Amino acid sequence: MTLTLYSSWRASAPYRVRIGLALKGLAYAYVSVDVAADAQREPDYRAVNPQALVPTLVLPDGRRLSQSMAILEWLDETHPAPPLLPADPTDRAVVRAMSGVIACDIHPVNNRRILQAIMAHGVDADGAIAWQQRWMSDGFDALEPLIAEHGRGYAFGDRPSLVDCCLVPQAYNARRVDLTLERWPALAAAIGAAMAHPAFIAARPDNQPDAR
Amino acid sequence: MTLTLYSSWRASAPYRVRIGLALKGLAYAYVSVDVAADAQREPDYRAVNPQALVPTLVLPDGRRLSQSMAILEWLDETHPAPPLLPADPTDRAVVRAMSGVIACDIHPVNNRRILQAIMAHGVDADGAIAWQQRWMSDGFDALEPLIAEHGRGYAFGDRPSLVDCCLVPQAYNARRVDLTLERWPALAAAIGAAMAHPAFIAARPDNQPDAR
Repeated sequence: MTLTLYSSWRASAPYRVRIGLALKGLAYAYVSVDVAADAQREPDYRAVNPQALVPTLVLPDGRRLSQSMAILEWLDETHPAPPLLPADPTDRAVVRAMSGVIACDIHPVNNRRILQAIMAHGVDADGAIAWQQRWMSDGFDALEPLIAEHGRGYAFGDRPSLVDCCLVPQAYNARRVDLTLERWPALAAAIGAAMAHPAFIAARPDNQPDAR
Repeated sequence: MTLTLYSSWRASAPYRVRIGLALKGLAYAYVSVDVAADAQREPDYRAVNPQALVPTLVLPDGRRLSQSMAILEWLDETHPAPPLLPADPTDRAVVRAMSGVIACDIHPVNNRRILQAIMAHGVDADGAIAWQQRWMSDGFDALEPLIAEHGRGYAFGDRPSLVDCCLVPQAYNARRVDLTLERWPALAAAIGAAMAHPAFIAARPDNQPDAR
């Protein structure tokens, strides 16, 4: 038996986990969940993940892991090489904090269910795009000095870390709402470096079996 | 020198960190940031935390940690007893996923800056309360079966964990928007148990120097 990932090609959270799996060199079965059709809310998928969110990683023993950041930490604990976190505890806290800017402060407020909710309150399509750009810009403002301080090729240090697993999917979302990155040169450079890495290429939405 | 926590008595994220510090038995200097007056956006605080969010934990060497979940992980790595995470990697992933339901999926979308943004889009005070209740209810629906499965007194197992550090502050927010917990009996029981623990009492908003 192997690992099974419930994923959706463009969704940010499974994209992060695909990067982590690829960095660790782990093979996995890919099961597509069509979030554009809200398939994650169907009974079939709720039986896998009661929270009705992607991703879910099913372990060889059948246990199911949810929440992308928890899965990435699990990956790093169970498959330590190459590491997604540095060795020093304070550095680890910085990497986790940088990741948290994306995983807590940008992505959840731009999630599909939130966009649907604000549109139900009368926000139109342009307003929904401006909403996403606003929170991305706030988060990128927070990340830029941290990447400038800590990055040496990648967002933190000279190898891919948990930050890059979050940052590259966030950059993909930024492109989808036409947010260009000139204002954040260190961030843009780190994204460019990571996107050229084979693991990040393998994890890219357009390289997934359910891409369309 | 000792630890210094930039906190605000009712804010969820510093409340989590106060619980963690109390569970570890660590003393710290308390610096109040009046988020009700948006003091976290003033230049003084931005010099401490450029993201303008509480908490910040300043270490004895002067390094500054941000993002509550990163700080709690740092606490657990540098002060392992008593642990905030179980020993088994899969159990650790479950605890982190349960914590992520709160830290990623409930709290960020109910944060003050988001409520201000939806109100700027015409949502009134009642609508803002309904907005918060909705995302809390969704998250509590996700947590209830996990606590029922994994809890043995506390939300996961028989001692306080990272989950309780997130859950008790979230319960405090639920009370502020009149969301009662009858629909989630396992969750309510875990909250009741944690709230009776001395560390959780010490961390309570009304026991902080800036309570009013």
